[in-house]
Amino acid sequence: MAKEKPSIPQGTRDFLPYQVQQRQYIFQTIKKVFENYGFLPIETPAVEKLNTLIGKYGEEGDRLIFKVLNSGNFLKGVDEQLLKEKDYNKLGYQICEKVLRYDLTVPLARFVVMHQNEIVLPFKRYQIQPVWRGDSPQKGRYREFWQCDADIVGSDSLVYEVEFIQMYYEALKNLGFQRFTIHINHRQVLQAVVDLLHISDKFSDFCIVIDKLDKIQWKGVTEELQQKGFHEEVIQKIQKIFQLQEGFKETINFLKEEFCNLPSGLKALEELEWIYEVVCSTNPAIETYLIFDLALARGLNYYTGSILEVKLQDMKVGSIGGGGRYDNLTALFGKEGLSGAGISFGIDRIYDAMNELQLFQNLDLKIPMIFIAYFDNKHLKKVFELANFLRKRNIRTEISPKNDKLGKQIQLADKKQIPYVLIVGEEEIQKEVYSLKHLVTGNQKNLDLFEIAEFIKNGGY
Amino acid sequence: MAKEKPSIPQGTRDFLPYQVQQRQYIFQTIKKVFENYGFLPIETPAVEKLNTLIGKYGEEGDRLIFKVLNSGNFLKGVDEQLLKEKDYNKLGYQICEKVLRYDLTVPLARFVVMHQNEIVLPFKRYQIQPVWRGDSPQKGRYREFWQCDADIVGSDSLVYEVEFIQMYYEALKNLGFQRFTIHINHRQVLQAVVDLLHISDKFSDFCIVIDKLDKIQWKGVTEELQQKGFHEEVIQKIQKIFQLQEGFKETINFLKEEFCNLPSGLKALEELEWIYEVVCSTNPAIETYLIFDLALARGLNYYTGSILEVKLQDMKVGSIGGGGRYDNLTALFGKEGLSGAGISFGIDRIYDAMNELQLFQNLDLKIPMIFIAYFDNKHLKKVFELANFLRKRNIRTEISPKNDKLGKQIQLADKKQIPYVLIVGEEEIQKEVYSLKHLVTGNQKNLDLFEIAEFIKNGGY
Repeated sequence: MAKEKPSIPQGTRDFLPYQVQQRQYIFQTIKKVFENYGFLPIETPAVEKLNTLIGKYGEEGDRLIFKVLNSGNFLKGVDEQLLKEKDYNKLGYQICEKVLRYDLTVPLARFVVMHQNEIVLPFKRYQIQPVWRGDSPQKGRYREFWQCDADIVGSDSLVYEVEFIQMYYEALKNLGFQRFTIHINHRQVLQAVVDLLHISDKFSDFCIVIDKLDKIQWKGVTEELQQKGFHEEVIQKIQKIFQLQEGFKETINFLKEEFCNLPSGLKALEELEWIYEVVCSTNPAIETYLIFDLALARGLNYYTGSILEVKLQDMKVGSIGGGGRYDNLTALFGKEGLSGAGISFGIDRIYDAMNELQLFQNLDLKIPMIFIAYFDNKHLKKVFELANFLRKRNIRTEISPKNDKLGKQIQLADKKQIPYVLIVGEEEIQKEVYSLKHLVTGNQKNLDLFEIAEFIKNGGY
Repeated sequence: MAKEKPSIPQGTRDFLPYQVQQRQYIFQTIKKVFENYGFLPIETPAVEKLNTLIGKYGEEGDRLIFKVLNSGNFLKGVDEQLLKEKDYNKLGYQICEKVLRYDLTVPLARFVVMHQNEIVLPFKRYQIQPVWRGDSPQKGRYREFWQCDADIVGSDSLVYEVEFIQMYYEALKNLGFQRFTIHINHRQVLQAVVDLLHISDKFSDFCIVIDKLDKIQWKGVTEELQQKGFHEEVIQKIQKIFQLQEGFKETINFLKEEFCNLPSGLKALEELEWIYEVVCSTNPAIETYLIFDLALARGLNYYTGSILEVKLQDMKVGSIGGGGRYDNLTALFGKEGLSGAGISFGIDRIYDAMNELQLFQNLDLKIPMIFIAYFDNKHLKKVFELANFLRKRNIRTEISPKNDKLGKQIQLADKKQIPYVLIVGEEEIQKEVYSLKHLVTGNQKNLDLFEIAEFIKNGGY
């Protein structure tokens, strides 16, 4: 067995204890919000059938899905011709029946159809699990990363659009973020814009380019539109519409006039207006965070109604969340007529941003509170008795592995960042009073067991 | 896109909301114990490099490891001869660089070596993550299942052997189990037995057979030993040694005499004796749960010192946990001289057993407490105001998607098992007093918002 220098696959990560706890804190904070809004957790397997996922994310998506090689003789029954031609693309589908989860949305659709008799519609579920994508790894982009989604399936009520905005706001505030913006738009508004300009046949191109406005500004957008064959006067009209934004209501009112002959565009505007009013009347503080962002288009194949995206100010991490309404996702698996909507939190970007903003500084990590040091192995029974007493009171306690010199034991506790050392010697056991040393200040107190437990429970120091 | 009837891969599972919450309860309960004993969480990627895992679990293990097909042209550079011969075994290693995690122990060894400058030894870590194995699925055996391990790396102190027994006891008691046994043995005791009988060359065979005593009784063991060529008189002596067990101390004393010329066997007995005494003096209640089980042998390649296994009485799920001491696991990755020990909880079997024993009955699932029904959409602003008030107080609240007939809204709440419906109409809004209906009893109270919050916070009913 070769002794290789160990490493992990590109784009994957190990998490050290403090990192796991910081990430757990993010999950817990968001879960709490999800649950307050009546969302319930589900979990799906990391491994799905190839047929379930392939073809659901477009060609590029299919390419990025990781396939799991069939067990045993995976070449049995494989098309000889493909082998001869080394047609790796088609062979991949013959030697693999399973793939790794690529997102949480298609599995949700599969889940809802499979378990339709075990769930109640409208189904409000949240899900926090890793997904895998064969993207080239780069800063902030991983091959194994976590998604954290809340979705509602089986209702077209706008109640959920309001709740999603509230949930984004509350979760990010609870995590400690101060400066962020929640962008909203509506696919039918974008549709109305292209209808208005008589370029309905170029809806996709238009959305792809306009979605980049934030990144490449008007100069870039103009160039790309030109490249895609948009006429100069059309580009000028687009620019006119997109530059007139000043506040949520003003934009709505401006577009209402423009869309006066486009009923589905007007309906979309009314929806946005209603969402905005209910959100702001429930919690006026959200108003300054909520932006009607006409240039928000998001992924193309997916959304059919309102769309959302959340961005951090002062940070270049891109969006840290997004979502929207999609009609008929479950139709992929034969169940028609279920409208859905959902939002997603980009946990890995949120984690990176919280580190940059030092939002974990006051997080109480669950490291042991007390380290018990002792001089003689014959005292170990007593040491275990003390530890047992403390642990029963949920005081995290670590026992020294050895009766090393006291200095060495204290050094170990200090390296482990355990704040208190409880020192157990002959005299202490006799008197039933123990020295409790605080390693940061060097302070030392002599206390009995009950006093120690109370002292620690009250926060120590 | 074909509309197939959706399904998931054999041996994997979806978890419905109540199942996720029940499983989370198991994880939380065990985590709490781990943390009280000073263990810290780590996480490793689901996908490891093929070289990291292959060769670490024996031939059978290698066969069961799932491989992940390389992205892109996986046939590039593959040995032509192997392709021609369809040598699927060797080809598998050429077209896959990554594999799915098979257990949590080899990744721990890899982690410790890779992060040796970021962790403090002795390193106490716990880890709760899924693993994947290509076993044939059967009742209680899955291809995707969860492991839940606590290990200590970098110390040979017996302190940890004591703690592991305490942790098993506390975790299982906290989960509500009453009737279980914690079996302990020592690989050096088994070694001494074969040395005593002059069959040291047959140590492996002996361990494999004797480990089955529980399942196949003496009749089966005798037959298997005969088949493996053990002499009749040796079998009789084995039987004599193994049948003489009566209580922990008696077994120790009996074996001490037998092993009088076998120093490493005596040392192992002294270790077991010390562990037993400290465990029982710390918590006498554990004594009746702790069994010196001479027939416990566990996996062969792995353990070098004490070994542990936990079994439920009255249940045929097999063991629900096991562990032991292993020397030098990190040597696999080039780091010598680190002794380690660990235990594992079989979450999936524990989950099945808890269901069978109805131990989840009193678990408080985090479903919404209040469902808000309303008659008129114009009242939605008020409805959101009420929901906001309740959610701010961590009262899980769901808003009806539509102003359906009241009966229909109540029916939906009932299907969702939400205990209370808050009814909002014109009159209620005027008076600021709302009807709160308890769906199980049918009781209805008229309360203002503050009263509702207090009522629910105090447990309701």
